Amino acid sequence: MKKLELTPLADIPLIQPGDNLAKITVEALSQQGIELLDGDILVFAQKIVSKAENRLVYLPEVHPSDQAIKIAAEVEKDPRFIELVLRESRQVLRKRIGTIIVEHRKGFICANAGIDHSNVSGPYGDPDQWVLLLPEDPDRSAQQIRSEIEKQSGAKIGVLIIDSHGRAWRLGTVGVSIGLAGMPGLVDLRGEADMFGYQLRITQVAAADELAAAASLVMGQADERTPIVHARGFPYPLREGRFEELLRPIELDLFR
Amino acid sequence: MKKLELTPLADIPLIQPGDNLAKITVEALSQQGIELLDGDILVFAQKIVSKAENRLVYLPEVHPSDQAIKIAAEVEKDPRFIELVLRESRQVLRKRIGTIIVEHRKGFICANAGIDHSNVSGPYGDPDQWVLLLPEDPDRSAQQIRSEIEKQSGAKIGVLIIDSHGRAWRLGTVGVSIGLAGMPGLVDLRGEADMFGYQLRITQVAAADELAAAASLVMGQADERTPIVHARGFPYPLREGRFEELLRPIELDLFR
Repeated sequence: MKKLELTPLADIPLIQPGDNLAKITVEALSQQGIELLDGDILVFAQKIVSKAENRLVYLPEVHPSDQAIKIAAEVEKDPRFIELVLRESRQVLRKRIGTIIVEHRKGFICANAGIDHSNVSGPYGDPDQWVLLLPEDPDRSAQQIRSEIEKQSGAKIGVLIIDSHGRAWRLGTVGVSIGLAGMPGLVDLRGEADMFGYQLRITQVAAADELAAAASLVMGQADERTPIVHARGFPYPLREGRFEELLRPIELDLFR
Repeated sequence: MKKLELTPLADIPLIQPGDNLAKITVEALSQQGIELLDGDILVFAQKIVSKAENRLVYLPEVHPSDQAIKIAAEVEKDPRFIELVLRESRQVLRKRIGTIIVEHRKGFICANAGIDHSNVSGPYGDPDQWVLLLPEDPDRSAQQIRSEIEKQSGAKIGVLIIDSHGRAWRLGTVGVSIGLAGMPGLVDLRGEADMFGYQLRITQVAAADELAAAASLVMGQADERTPIVHARGFPYPLREGRFEELLRPIELDLFR
């Protein structure tokens, strides 16, 4: 019986643009006495990846389009913020006062295109005027972090970037993946005979999202202070994976 | 930094109607050398709770209504199966060949009202003709298991009953809670100032669903053989909780 262990890394500094997350991770692991093994996965809160990649935007420099101004009035939000949401999205799914649900340009459905408070510190004054976009290409970010950690540690690992999303019919957020490298998004379980049609049925498990939720639980409320989690005991073989595996094709979407 | 550990219990027998899950759990913990501590949570796959409660139904004894026959023709499923789905549901949300998405009578949205293959063994012949409904009242089931384990162990624990659900916009299933006792469903995090309106904002985390996903990961494909998971390091205080906390009120539902 394989145990799954999730350990938040201690003493991660507040991440600034340009920081090297791989180096910070390797140092934190070493300080905590964790030696990376093949099959381990490192999980990163989206926020620190975005900050390291300097995805900060200064609102006074954003010029909202007419469409953004119109939607902003409908949902009662800042038109500059809505402008950024639209730029980061393929499609607006739902609008309501205080809420805008979109398909992000990377294909997942979420509120506000994942744009969040920046809570920036350091050289950035006027913190209320800064927002933080998701990484440009989260799979690429994960791949870069993975390559560098593998080079420094010699272990074959997976890297997962997660965010917290709401759900259509349940309250509360859960951690979900938005980018990954060196690990599966979906895992096909054994074919099972469907009892009514007797055809073979494949069950697919969203293993990356299950791990995202688990890691999110230990990042918890202090996700600025414990934004990196070490996971050991992921029960499926690592492989080259892509976030896109997890996206439901539009023709199978009953709820758009 | 608190570690979260999820340990599947070994050597759980195939559960039969009438089995005492609390007793089986306590014995398995003892055999595995795990002493329960205050704050530990035990996670149960829905399937074994349903079997222990004898929620098995023999399809030849089900007489489908006209409505069930009509829907069954539309979605190309067994009318007796659809009859059970309708009896277990409040509302049908979507229908498509091979798929019926409903609001279960306990309020959550899922496919087939959570009714599954029974895979029964033992005294039940003709296994293709048996299906397994969800527990009558999963919170009550969780509460019963919890009381008995607490009595036998002296520890204050939480109990979580989980199932695997699909998602509207992502492929693959994830573990989610359908019943709980002695633990929170939702957890309110610190109020955060909303940067655009400056009103205090509460973030709610679906902690029970995050733990459900984590436990589901270690139950994995062998969920008939490792249907009970011991969780240590849940980062929030235990309290009397109810599954209903997790349900999004209909007036906040944008996707029904």
